[in-house]
Amino acid sequence: MIELFATEKLMALYPKVEAFVKEELQPIEIELLKQPFNQAAKILEDKRTIARQLGIWAPFLNSEDGGQGLSMTEFAQISEILATTPFGHYALNCQAPDIGNIELLNKYSTEDQRRKYLKPLMEGKIRSCFSMTEPGFAGSNPVNMDTTAIRDGNDYIINGHKWFTTAADGAAFAIVMAVTDKDADKYRRASMIIVPTDTPGFNLVRNIPVMGETGEGYLTHGEIRYEDCRVPVSNLIDEEGSGFLLAQQRLGPGRIHHCMRWIGICERALDMMCRYAVSRDMGDGTVLADKQTIQNWIAESRAEIDAARYMVLHTAHMIDQQGSKAARIEISTIKFFVSNILMNVLDKAIQTHGALGITDDLVLSWWYRHERGSRIYDGPDEVHKSVLAKKILKQYM
Amino acid sequence: MIELFATEKLMALYPKVEAFVKEELQPIEIELLKQPFNQAAKILEDKRTIARQLGIWAPFLNSEDGGQGLSMTEFAQISEILATTPFGHYALNCQAPDIGNIELLNKYSTEDQRRKYLKPLMEGKIRSCFSMTEPGFAGSNPVNMDTTAIRDGNDYIINGHKWFTTAADGAAFAIVMAVTDKDADKYRRASMIIVPTDTPGFNLVRNIPVMGETGEGYLTHGEIRYEDCRVPVSNLIDEEGSGFLLAQQRLGPGRIHHCMRWIGICERALDMMCRYAVSRDMGDGTVLADKQTIQNWIAESRAEIDAARYMVLHTAHMIDQQGSKAARIEISTIKFFVSNILMNVLDKAIQTHGALGITDDLVLSWWYRHERGSRIYDGPDEVHKSVLAKKILKQYM
Amino acid sequence: MIELFATEKLMALYPKVEAFVKEELQPIEIELLKQPFNQAAKILEDKRTIARQLGIWAPFLNSEDGGQGLSMTEFAQISEILATTPFGHYALNCQAPDIGNIELLNKYSTEDQRRKYLKPLMEGKIRSCFSMTEPGFAGSNPVNMDTTAIRDGNDYIINGHKWFTTAADGAAFAIVMAVTDKDADKYRRASMIIVPTDTPGFNLVRNIPVMGETGEGYLTHGEIRYEDCRVPVSNLIDEEGSGFLLAQQRLGPGRIHHCMRWIGICERALDMMCRYAVSRDMGDGTVLADKQTIQNWIAESRAEIDAARYMVLHTAHMIDQQGSKAARIEISTIKFFVSNILMNVLDKAIQTHGALGITDDLVLSWWYRHERGSRIYDGPDEVHKSVLAKKILKQYM
Amino acid sequence: MIELFATEKLMALYPKVEAFVKEELQPIEIELLKQPFNQAAKILEDKRTIARQLGIWAPFLNSEDGGQGLSMTEFAQISEILATTPFGHYALNCQAPDIGNIELLNKYSTEDQRRKYLKPLMEGKIRSCFSMTEPGFAGSNPVNMDTTAIRDGNDYIINGHKWFTTAADGAAFAIVMAVTDKDADKYRRASMIIVPTDTPGFNLVRNIPVMGETGEGYLTHGEIRYEDCRVPVSNLIDEEGSGFLLAQQRLGPGRIHHCMRWIGICERALDMMCRYAVSRDMGDGTVLADKQTIQNWIAESRAEIDAARYMVLHTAHMIDQQGSKAARIEISTIKFFVSNILMNVLDKAIQTHGALGITDDLVLSWWYRHERGSRIYDGPDEVHKSVLAKKILKQYM
Repeated sequence: MIELFATEKLMALYPKVEAFVKEELQPIEIELLKQPFNQAAKILEDKRTIARQLGIWAPFLNSEDGGQGLSMTEFAQISEILATTPFGHYALNCQAPDIGNIELLNKYSTEDQRRKYLKPLMEGKIRSCFSMTEPGFAGSNPVNMDTTAIRDGNDYIINGHKWFTTAADGAAFAIVMAVTDKDADKYRRASMIIVPTDTPGFNLVRNIPVMGETGEGYLTHGEIRYEDCRVPVSNLIDEEGSGFLLAQQRLGPGRIHHCMRWIGICERALDMMCRYAVSRDMGDGTVLADKQTIQNWIAESRAEIDAARYMVLHTAHMIDQQGSKAARIEISTIKFFVSNILMNVLDKAIQTHGALGITDDLVLSWWYRHERGSRIYDGPDEVHKSVLAKKILKQYM
Repeated sequence: MIELFATEKLMALYPKVEAFVKEELQPIEIELLKQPFNQAAKILEDKRTIARQLGIWAPFLNSEDGGQGLSMTEFAQISEILATTPFGHYALNCQAPDIGNIELLNKYSTEDQRRKYLKPLMEGKIRSCFSMTEPGFAGSNPVNMDTTAIRDGNDYIINGHKWFTTAADGAAFAIVMAVTDKDADKYRRASMIIVPTDTPGFNLVRNIPVMGETGEGYLTHGEIRYEDCRVPVSNLIDEEGSGFLLAQQRLGPGRIHHCMRWIGICERALDMMCRYAVSRDMGDGTVLADKQTIQNWIAESRAEIDAARYMVLHTAHMIDQQGSKAARIEISTIKFFVSNILMNVLDKAIQTHGALGITDDLVLSWWYRHERGSRIYDGPDEVHKSVLAKKILKQYM
Repeated sequence: MIELFATEKLMALYPKVEAFVKEELQPIEIELLKQPFNQAAKILEDKRTIARQLGIWAPFLNSEDGGQGLSMTEFAQISEILATTPFGHYALNCQAPDIGNIELLNKYSTEDQRRKYLKPLMEGKIRSCFSMTEPGFAGSNPVNMDTTAIRDGNDYIINGHKWFTTAADGAAFAIVMAVTDKDADKYRRASMIIVPTDTPGFNLVRNIPVMGETGEGYLTHGEIRYEDCRVPVSNLIDEEGSGFLLAQQRLGPGRIHHCMRWIGICERALDMMCRYAVSRDMGDGTVLADKQTIQNWIAESRAEIDAARYMVLHTAHMIDQQGSKAARIEISTIKFFVSNILMNVLDKAIQTHGALGITDDLVLSWWYRHERGSRIYDGPDEVHKSVLAKKILKQYM
Repeated sequence: MIELFATEKLMALYPKVEAFVKEELQPIEIELLKQPFNQAAKILEDKRTIARQLGIWAPFLNSEDGGQGLSMTEFAQISEILATTPFGHYALNCQAPDIGNIELLNKYSTEDQRRKYLKPLMEGKIRSCFSMTEPGFAGSNPVNMDTTAIRDGNDYIINGHKWFTTAADGAAFAIVMAVTDKDADKYRRASMIIVPTDTPGFNLVRNIPVMGETGEGYLTHGEIRYEDCRVPVSNLIDEEGSGFLLAQQRLGPGRIHHCMRWIGICERALDMMCRYAVSRDMGDGTVLADKQTIQNWIAESRAEIDAARYMVLHTAHMIDQQGSKAARIEISTIKFFVSNILMNVLDKAIQTHGALGITDDLVLSWWYRHERGSRIYDGPDEVHKSVLAKKILKQYM
């Protein structure tokens, strides 16, 4: 916690979450990762029960929705501690992509959508996915896509090819981004539509093998073909043509959620580095921590992580005060800045552990693989840098 | 200014200082740098008069001492804007090494010392220097030194060899660090003593040529031989043996002052990059700012500078709340973190300007040379990293 | 091929190997990686038959042993082209760790050992492993180990705990490094002994899961417990106490083999970057290759790879002329220099491909995971840097 | 020397040059740098006499022109040793920009030009400069320029504004690049013309202050206004319109000359690092060289320098075999690759020396300033990277 961002509510909640993570999750994290997800999910279900009992469930939700009513700035700090173990967010039902879908639906769903989709999602009874990225289009610019939703009576008929629909396997529904009016202005072409995954024509082609793992259930990235997939018009979120705006709204906080997570991962990696460095006997009366190179890595990591945290918390604070649209540039900035720090710190942590560091006996190698995507998804570094630079340069023109 | 650190006092003062810097100093900065310092000093004297009139003089001093009574956090933000031009701090009489000496004497001087040395220093009537570093000793560990001050009746007789006594040329007095009891505990061996520079035996051997410039007056780094240099015992600061502790007290805030400065330099360099990039015609209908590499540099610089600023301001805030001793580790962290960002940003700014960037027609090349020392003085990066790492590792032992 | 290193023999062989790699292996590389190794091995057996027919089999072996009789410098260039696909070396029976064991046994084995172990290994009828690294000891300094081989009549009884015994699963025998005389000078304590893997007491505890894969057969890293594992004294390689010297001899060329491989991987990664960059439509009339950032990556990769190749070939040339002992420092240098270039180039290649880059649809993600160890195994970067620096500094003392 | 590139001629010459550099130049290098160039030039004149006597004069010239008749590959290795001290090349009359002008005139001058300009230049009796770069145009693309040479009877009348005309101060003549036919194809617009510096209208506006130094004589970068500067048509080099082609021919070898120099500077910087590291007492029984960070820097520098040398020598070899046009891409590659290594190594060498490193008591700070331009002149890194990348990418289109 940072003094300036430490509210009373946070100070009350933080130690509870920290204890939960350290006692309930970290000790079994390797065990959880080694089994197929659907098996791990049973153990995690018990942890969720404990979380509900401890009063730490769904920290980002309002109390009327069963949550803890945290501001973005408060949640950022809880999120960090949750991220120190792979299933921290999952255990409190604030994992991506569900948290993003919850935030979206919470703001834009109809009563009926809320009852059928949002409510059980908030309660952790179902999972969901977000189906936007297409293999045929560069970047994650939600303007470019081939998937269409054609109005047919009271239905939409959806056709298209999506991939990296994270956690599609086992999800109850997808929020699909599709073109509803190809002739409209490019920012008004697409809409978001809820598609239950048991709808005929929703075809999960495969879980894409990523960095050596195909995964299962929540831990997957789905490739999906929508083939004459018919859903009622009432499944439309907000209004026709608002897809791009909704995507912007969803991605902004989504990016900050990622940054929060990455800082937590970094803290854990640094903790592991230090722990190992002081205990690794070099056979000559010294320990690994006596090596200046290791000390350099620890110092550089500490500095980078602190810098990242301040950046992210000030951005969260800005979002709390002025909304995520106002913080758009700040969000682009932290996206590329923090993801690179994450990769730096993980790399140093692995190198510190030597051969042990690349084994799956530690969680580091899992993050190393799973987070390589951090510099790519939700907009690659290069896109965010250009966005930021162009915004800055505009002031000079 | 950062919203969370923007007090009313600061918001009133900031625009005045900014206007002063942009109107009075930046337009003549190259002209000032091109002439010998003692000539530039005359012009700067006029600027100091303006500064007094504008009510922005000596922002870190209390109002009873003629200053603006800013906290460290407030001053940090003023310091940043001052640093966007080489003589900003000088114009407001808050330049190193005088500011450090003022802070030290303000806390520890006798009435007599205050009257004779501190008062005229606060008023900008004289300059001073700080004589600690010796060529024979590695690092800037104030524990190691050869210079001695031997008690002889009511006098000290000082002998020793110092260098990098910044701004000694033209200074009215030096604060000298010397061993008064070589048999004491290593942290109690040395004392600080005021030595007027006209004392016989205070021999300024040379202004050390640094990065191509020998300089003059304030813009120098002196090599000094103290040869049977006799000063009254009443020139002792605080008490015998307190030299190390005083040095720690002086260096802590000194380092944060540097960091504030560096951020200001970075902001100016980035501003110059942007300004040049949008105006440089590439001969093919595009401008330099259209190049993705330039955009990358702008974005990366922006992110790094923001990160640095948050780090420094949170450290300043910690010093305001808990004192500089409590923030010792934070100060080590920002010292190496920010100095490296400074060098990164300056390097990119120069590269952006091409051949123009290495000329002295711009202020960039001056900073590039003068700030290369930033990673060395007040403790090289490597020492600060080890200090930080060892402090962290201690928690694991 | 580099002009100065292009012999006639090489110029005759190179295009054949290149065609073999591009026609027989690259097209099925993803398919091969997707199946369990023992299944892939059947397909690879057919490829080995083709290789024998083409006269490219075992290029590093003498013709009387069925090979092509290449010098190290020639083989380096063949090795590079082989490395452009994961099973290139395997298909020509010059894969680690077998190639290292063959080189060792070829020089030091008895007639009996040659007949029983070396001959079938050269013919690709069996596989082998090298059992040196222990989890309890830092670095890969072959001086430190706990495994013992106690003489008992005409047998050794081996006890110890090894890990990262690569390809132990399915190997016919291991070359084990064990202490035979704990009281000897530290460089004379250990010996190398051949242990058939079906010997009682040779217990493959597990294939260590590394970067998400446990693997199978050749593609594994074994953890082995030697528990009263008894082998005849005639299985000793060379003489008692020569283990350290043999290890040095084995590791030197081993490291250069790795470097050759890494350059081949880099070339393939760069080729994939270029191929993708020119074909990826950005949706605005440009392709990815038009982006300056991508161009920077291609240029920087090209320069680094070229530099690496020159370094490695000059080192290979030195080994050919003066033996691997003379090139010890050069080998340390290329080990850390090239492994870092490998990681740089792979990282850029992945980032260029975006989301596709992290999928297992391309071979990049396989290398990204499998080669992260390159900066660790056979001595981490940090150890090689110290070795090199100390050797240089010795000339100044 | 690299074994593969060590000819008999080189092995005979190298030790003589090395001894000359170490005995005649390095000991007085700081002294030479401290005085105005025209004063240093007198001392250097004596050294030139010694060089002639030793038979090492003008190593790149044929023996009939008084030189040693070295190939590019041989000269590269001599150039490296010369570059270990600031005036090495000057002492042997192979300094830029004269060497480039000599190479150009040697190939293209008329008998008359040869007698009047080339001969005395070869003999070191006069100096020259090369006047191409203009402040108004980005990059060093010789296609873009405003300077014109208008035919008027048997004269050209030259008008234009040039800068970074290195060593113009005191030069006997300039080779000026000017547009002779603005309507021609862009590669045929410009011509090269010899302009004696005492021609009316050749106005050296100033020596541009660069990185803190205005310099004098040879050590300057001139800003020149050509104002109705009239020279006879017989001063044209080659033919009208061939300026661009001649520039390409001149810049190619020019870049390789720079790379050779940079490697020599790196070697000296590394030598100084090592020398200082073993002698700097840390006050605790260790020396600086015991620090792992210093060891890392030494090892990384060693590796980078070796890599750079192999690259440059293979490129020189290619030029010797196939001409500089064939090696155009290789030259672009080494230009950005080696200049960055130069800056890395210099930075580490300075940091190793601490405060001493930034003083002008060592030659490091001189190089740090003077070579910052290496990443800019003769085409900035960014341009060379694009050139290289586009050439590579062309093969994929």
